[in-house]
Amino acid sequence: MIDALDLAAKLIACNSVTPADGGAQDVLQTALESIGFRVHRLHSSEGPDGPIANLFAIRGSGGPHFAFAGHTDVVPPGAGWASDPFAPEVRGGLLHGRGAVDMKGAIAAFVAAASQVETKGTLSLIITGDEEGPATFGTVALMDWMESESIRPDLILVGEPTSAHKLGDTIKIGRRGSVNMTVTVPGRQGHVAYPHLADNPVPTLARIVSALSAWTLDSGTEWFQPSNLEITDIATSNEATNVIPGVARARLNIRFNDLHTGADLVRDVKAAVAEIAPRATVEARISGEAFRTDPGALSDLVTGAIRDVLGVEPELSTSGGTSDARFLSRIAPTIEFGLPNATMHKLDEAVAVADLEALTETYAEVIRRALG
Amino acid sequence: MIDALDLAAKLIACNSVTPADGGAQDVLQTALESIGFRVHRLHSSEGPDGPIANLFAIRGSGGPHFAFAGHTDVVPPGAGWASDPFAPEVRGGLLHGRGAVDMKGAIAAFVAAASQVETKGTLSLIITGDEEGPATFGTVALMDWMESESIRPDLILVGEPTSAHKLGDTIKIGRRGSVNMTVTVPGRQGHVAYPHLADNPVPTLARIVSALSAWTLDSGTEWFQPSNLEITDIATSNEATNVIPGVARARLNIRFNDLHTGADLVRDVKAAVAEIAPRATVEARISGEAFRTDPGALSDLVTGAIRDVLGVEPELSTSGGTSDARFLSRIAPTIEFGLPNATMHKLDEAVAVADLEALTETYAEVIRRALG
Ligand SMILES: [Zn+2]
Ligand SMILES: [Zn+2]
Repeated sequence: MIDALDLAAKLIACNSVTPADGGAQDVLQTALESIGFRVHRLHSSEGPDGPIANLFAIRGSGGPHFAFAGHTDVVPPGAGWASDPFAPEVRGGLLHGRGAVDMKGAIAAFVAAASQVETKGTLSLIITGDEEGPATFGTVALMDWMESESIRPDLILVGEPTSAHKLGDTIKIGRRGSVNMTVTVPGRQGHVAYPHLADNPVPTLARIVSALSAWTLDSGTEWFQPSNLEITDIATSNEATNVIPGVARARLNIRFNDLHTGADLVRDVKAAVAEIAPRATVEARISGEAFRTDPGALSDLVTGAIRDVLGVEPELSTSGGTSDARFLSRIAPTIEFGLPNATMHKLDEAVAVADLEALTETYAEVIRRALG
Repeated sequence: MIDALDLAAKLIACNSVTPADGGAQDVLQTALESIGFRVHRLHSSEGPDGPIANLFAIRGSGGPHFAFAGHTDVVPPGAGWASDPFAPEVRGGLLHGRGAVDMKGAIAAFVAAASQVETKGTLSLIITGDEEGPATFGTVALMDWMESESIRPDLILVGEPTSAHKLGDTIKIGRRGSVNMTVTVPGRQGHVAYPHLADNPVPTLARIVSALSAWTLDSGTEWFQPSNLEITDIATSNEATNVIPGVARARLNIRFNDLHTGADLVRDVKAAVAEIAPRATVEARISGEAFRTDPGALSDLVTGAIRDVLGVEPELSTSGGTSDARFLSRIAPTIEFGLPNATMHKLDEAVAVADLEALTETYAEVIRRALG
């Protein structure tokens, strides 16, 4: 039997700020092997910031196949903690340390739960060290490897900290997608005293900004709030008060629901810009597509476990930023459920020991319902 | 008799980058006293960048009173000169050095001209060391002092480098005014995933930019091109792609003819901005009002001298940036005539020795016509 608090503390003690692993996946491998998992380690050395550690663990065989997904990497702690962010410490019923809620605590809870439940079929863990970073050499690399091994889960639970005020009050059945674009309008620089020799790009950019800001992308769906476009920056980088700038730029972000794809939105923005300024250019970077897992077997399984163990009725949400669920949802129904997120990415990140124990019980009930 | 080339070289040898004087006005005082001028030195120590040297010189008494105005300060040389910018050197018929055309050469030509001509009435020189700087403690301070002494010229010739391609081809009978404004639209910063908690100021700023860019201020006058408004910068200073900016700014410049005053334009911009965004603010700085000296006795005198000495028919222009003529024109008809301006404010600034001699002859003819 694995103790969630003990394992969480051991994981927190590893300094695994992306892309570092700090020994976290060794700790995890030892724990998983002790409860019957076969562990495959997959290191990517291609990352721009350094090699990435990934881990896949599997127990049992045949269907059904239930998978838990998560990440051992953490965001930088920043300065000003009350105690060393990588020296786990229980104070006032709270386990303090970077990653306590996002999401070493949830990984520990799931491993502890797996140690308590005898399972039929296949139980697996998909663990990346590159979720808080560019996410290019983490979950995606593991999914490629799984495909090459013909490993495909039927249901996936991502242990991100989805709870808002109280453990179990919120689970995520989708996330909006996100795309960033930079619109560049070229002009011709010149002196303000000789405007006929120059071509000021700012009025054209203002027209583009006005046109794009006025867009209604959709009015939301049953599960998603409306997609939204925001201009996040405008600039000419012109310091001189007597110079007409030679170029003007706007940066925008679109958070979009599953009525859109990133590529469609890039195409639409390019068309709208081209209509106003044929010489303008649009550079785009799609951070993630929207995903949605319709309420059904998986959400019933998770909400049923939450209701029975925690006595809470979870809200099915699609709000917030992106997570690796955007990748995993391509291969199986995926939802996210984990600890309260109040201290995630903050100073003095901490998880209530009682929440860690209650999450372990709830995850155990989820596993029982999936593979019991 | 003063030699223009010799005096120009002595002046160039003084490093007088604004606000420094570098001994230039001592050189000038010595030359002027040797040809019968009484010299008054006026130092202002109030300048934000250091004390400013100014000089007023006067010869004769009674009317008419003809004044020459100019500045001994120069703009910084920058790096990359073929020879030391403060070590005057004649190469290939050109006197090289910072200030050769703007405008130590013209001052030297005028003093040399004054040394050749016996004058009736009053001849004076109004010389500032703060024309290339903020111009707050230079010509304006001299004008205050002149007023306190009841000294008021009837005609003023400013020796700025007005010639374009050939000495005498252009004189300035006016200049447009200039005003800079910064429009600040406040909003409420927030995360792009939660736009309902934020208030993006960029679309509002875009509307303001569009409205102001569409203005037609006037269609020009007999002597002036149309007034013109240019947006010179837009900015939010927001680096983060996932943040809605809390503030957006636009900076603009208006070059205006004498149908407007700076104050009127500030009032109009404030009204237009307030209509679109009541919470927006407008900061303004009027660099100079427009001025115009209608063609008449003074321009006839100068164009006549140019025609006779140089065989050139000068164009009466009001184009280009501002000069201290904007102040001087308040007390007397003011026009500007000086050297070809091709190298002013540039690397390897240089004046043709032949132009220096021809300008001396022309200034002498001007003095003769005014006070002969
Ligand atoms: Zn996370
Ligand atoms: Zn000048």
